Amino acid sequence: MTQLDKARKKIYTKEMRFISRYEDIDIKILIDNVRKGTVVIPANRNHKSLKRPIGIGKDLKVKVNANIGGSPLDLSLKKELKKMEVAIEAGADTIMDLTIANNPKDIDRIRRKILEKSSVPVGTVPIYQAVIEAGGPQNLTIKKYLEVYERQAKEGVDFTTVHAGIKRRALSLVKKRLIPCVSRGGSIILSWMKKNREENFLYKYFDDILDIAKEFDVTISLGDGLRPGCIFDATDRAQIYELKVLGELVIRAQERGVQVMVEGPGHIPLNEIEKNIKLEKRICKDAPFYVLGPLPIDRAVGYDHIASAIGGAWAGYLGADFLCYVTPREHIGLPDINDVREGVIVTKIASSIADLARGNKNERLKNNLISSARKAFNWNKMLDLSIDPEKFEDLLTQSIRLNKGCSMCGDKFCALRIFR
Amino acid sequence: MTQLDKARKKIYTKEMRFISRYEDIDIKILIDNVRKGTVVIPANRNHKSLKRPIGIGKDLKVKVNANIGGSPLDLSLKKELKKMEVAIEAGADTIMDLTIANNPKDIDRIRRKILEKSSVPVGTVPIYQAVIEAGGPQNLTIKKYLEVYERQAKEGVDFTTVHAGIKRRALSLVKKRLIPCVSRGGSIILSWMKKNREENFLYKYFDDILDIAKEFDVTISLGDGLRPGCIFDATDRAQIYELKVLGELVIRAQERGVQVMVEGPGHIPLNEIEKNIKLEKRICKDAPFYVLGPLPIDRAVGYDHIASAIGGAWAGYLGADFLCYVTPREHIGLPDINDVREGVIVTKIASSIADLARGNKNERLKNNLISSARKAFNWNKMLDLSIDPEKFEDLLTQSIRLNKGCSMCGDKFCALRIFR
Repeated sequence: MTQLDKARKKIYTKEMRFISRYEDIDIKILIDNVRKGTVVIPANRNHKSLKRPIGIGKDLKVKVNANIGGSPLDLSLKKELKKMEVAIEAGADTIMDLTIANNPKDIDRIRRKILEKSSVPVGTVPIYQAVIEAGGPQNLTIKKYLEVYERQAKEGVDFTTVHAGIKRRALSLVKKRLIPCVSRGGSIILSWMKKNREENFLYKYFDDILDIAKEFDVTISLGDGLRPGCIFDATDRAQIYELKVLGELVIRAQERGVQVMVEGPGHIPLNEIEKNIKLEKRICKDAPFYVLGPLPIDRAVGYDHIASAIGGAWAGYLGADFLCYVTPREHIGLPDINDVREGVIVTKIASSIADLARGNKNERLKNNLISSARKAFNWNKMLDLSIDPEKFEDLLTQSIRLNKGCSMCGDKFCALRIFR
Repeated sequence: MTQLDKARKKIYTKEMRFISRYEDIDIKILIDNVRKGTVVIPANRNHKSLKRPIGIGKDLKVKVNANIGGSPLDLSLKKELKKMEVAIEAGADTIMDLTIANNPKDIDRIRRKILEKSSVPVGTVPIYQAVIEAGGPQNLTIKKYLEVYERQAKEGVDFTTVHAGIKRRALSLVKKRLIPCVSRGGSIILSWMKKNREENFLYKYFDDILDIAKEFDVTISLGDGLRPGCIFDATDRAQIYELKVLGELVIRAQERGVQVMVEGPGHIPLNEIEKNIKLEKRICKDAPFYVLGPLPIDRAVGYDHIASAIGGAWAGYLGADFLCYVTPREHIGLPDINDVREGVIVTKIASSIADLARGNKNERLKNNLISSARKAFNWNKMLDLSIDPEKFEDLLTQSIRLNKGCSMCGDKFCALRIFR
């Protein structure tokens, strides 16, 4: 039985208990949300090292995912384990291993080690490995896909992106775009459909995927293969067409007792974010919404983590449940270890801003405490309450401690001292 | 005559012509906005080096200010000139010199050199120097203030913060706050009123300030001495009380033909930003709104520039006209040169996101062009269109050029190449 099946039978799982304590939420509200599909708990029964299960969705804090994983140009198990460690320490709620490699054994090797070590839920995109094992997009079969999917599920992957929403009609819709497809999974499926002149096999055989997901309680994250990759394509017909298919798949998954969430854009201008969140919530029956960004500008290259935090904070406040981080190196290459850390911290800032705006009591309390500490010039207490104490400590050392006081005003002219 | 007086007489100034070309806006719309007070053009008739006048307000792009200036713990003319240069190069539309020093001559010296060199409008907060020359807040007199104000105005300062909105009633209202006052100017006035048991002399003698401002066409920026300094105090009675006084002062300034804008918060949670913008626009008759942040969280110490960009992008989209940058070192000390650069770039990202969301055609075009270049893997063209080409060049060198390709996927697995 999955967490969803258990919620339907009113069985409290140890993950629900953990989340209820951690989030300070009544377990009855939590189980009710899981039952309705408005909260998912990605916790594969075979992920033995999972120490910090999380809930994603309604009434819960906004969560942060960090993408890690190597590519043929940058492949090292050691480096990926270090990224995982740094991401979790900086506050990532989940990680996704997106490794691709010329030799599929490298993908297995890295994923297995990550699953062995990760205390947080781990996600993957099984089609990446399937396409490599098949020898290219055109040769891919549902058999190969299911084989890879089952292997990863059996090993303990907690959630998987499945690009089942891109149907054949999308081939004509993307022609109107400035950039037809920026999703790797999406482009694999489009390319396969074009060559084979058949419907997307992930859509056609979705029930077979659900069978495996059900067995191990893998949460399905419905991929948005047609997410807009630039402002020009935002909220276009291709995107909305796929979203409607995802809405249908949400219901099919839930009927099978499989937990499901929905992935979302992408590049979206600030004025269209609200519309995007509302559409997803309506079409997908309030299934948890997992957004990549959104990036409200195309021109912030090198600072895409910041542009993404701007979109993400707003999306989170309006109802997005899960923010995929973006790093400074987005659009240029894989992140290094510092980029991973920076990406997580900045996205935590966005999620905390969203939590505060949504009225989360714990977040509010922490803000009041740090401000009381600021008023009292208690730098050490501020440090404990800050989102990144490590960075704060650096700046304190360079500024306050070096100058024996705050250089902003010098003690005599400090606003906090002039008038108390 | 000020720009406002001239607009009333339908006289096109050379600044209006420059702005009309630079912003690609019909000069008739511009002059009409200046006439109504919904746009200000800070351009002191004695600021000889001003090469890039700007308009702030309705129908125009959101502008960015960079605060520079030393303090007794960190005072160097050379450093401040370098900050100015770096800020302007990174895209600051204006700079404010907030220097404070034990010896007022240092303040004069730094400001004069900045005015001599700055191609963009320069702002100051005259009360800082007045309080130092008076020997402390309690000894301050309107005579001393006007003397300093006139000196700065005569030298060419384009806009000045005047904390005339804090009336005596504020003394009781701030008692309910977690942090009574975080504005240096505000705390000086509160402290003076408490000691002298009199009404704020800036309010009482506001007409005398207007006389000087009128003579040199100094734009008055009505300071928000009671801006909330933490989330707990956001949108509280003290803040709104001051805003109402500012609304009254806006009218008094405009009646005298003095250009005027209004300063705003501060620490404001994301869910209260819209309300704050609407209140200002309503109470202050659509006078341009100059916000500091807003910072939608207190706990992002070390990343306050990013938190501020999150609030600023949203505020700009909703109608704020002018964003004061915040640097990574906010709340910890004065920014160094790198902090200034980072602060300006990040705030430019926020203002560009706001422009795009407001429907600015130029911003939209630039986004479409950079995305076309991305599709074509034309890294050099992307570089030209990016907000910070310097940072992009760094990352390109470290990533693409080093790896002879993009490490995100490696060429074979690139979404843009798999499906075209």
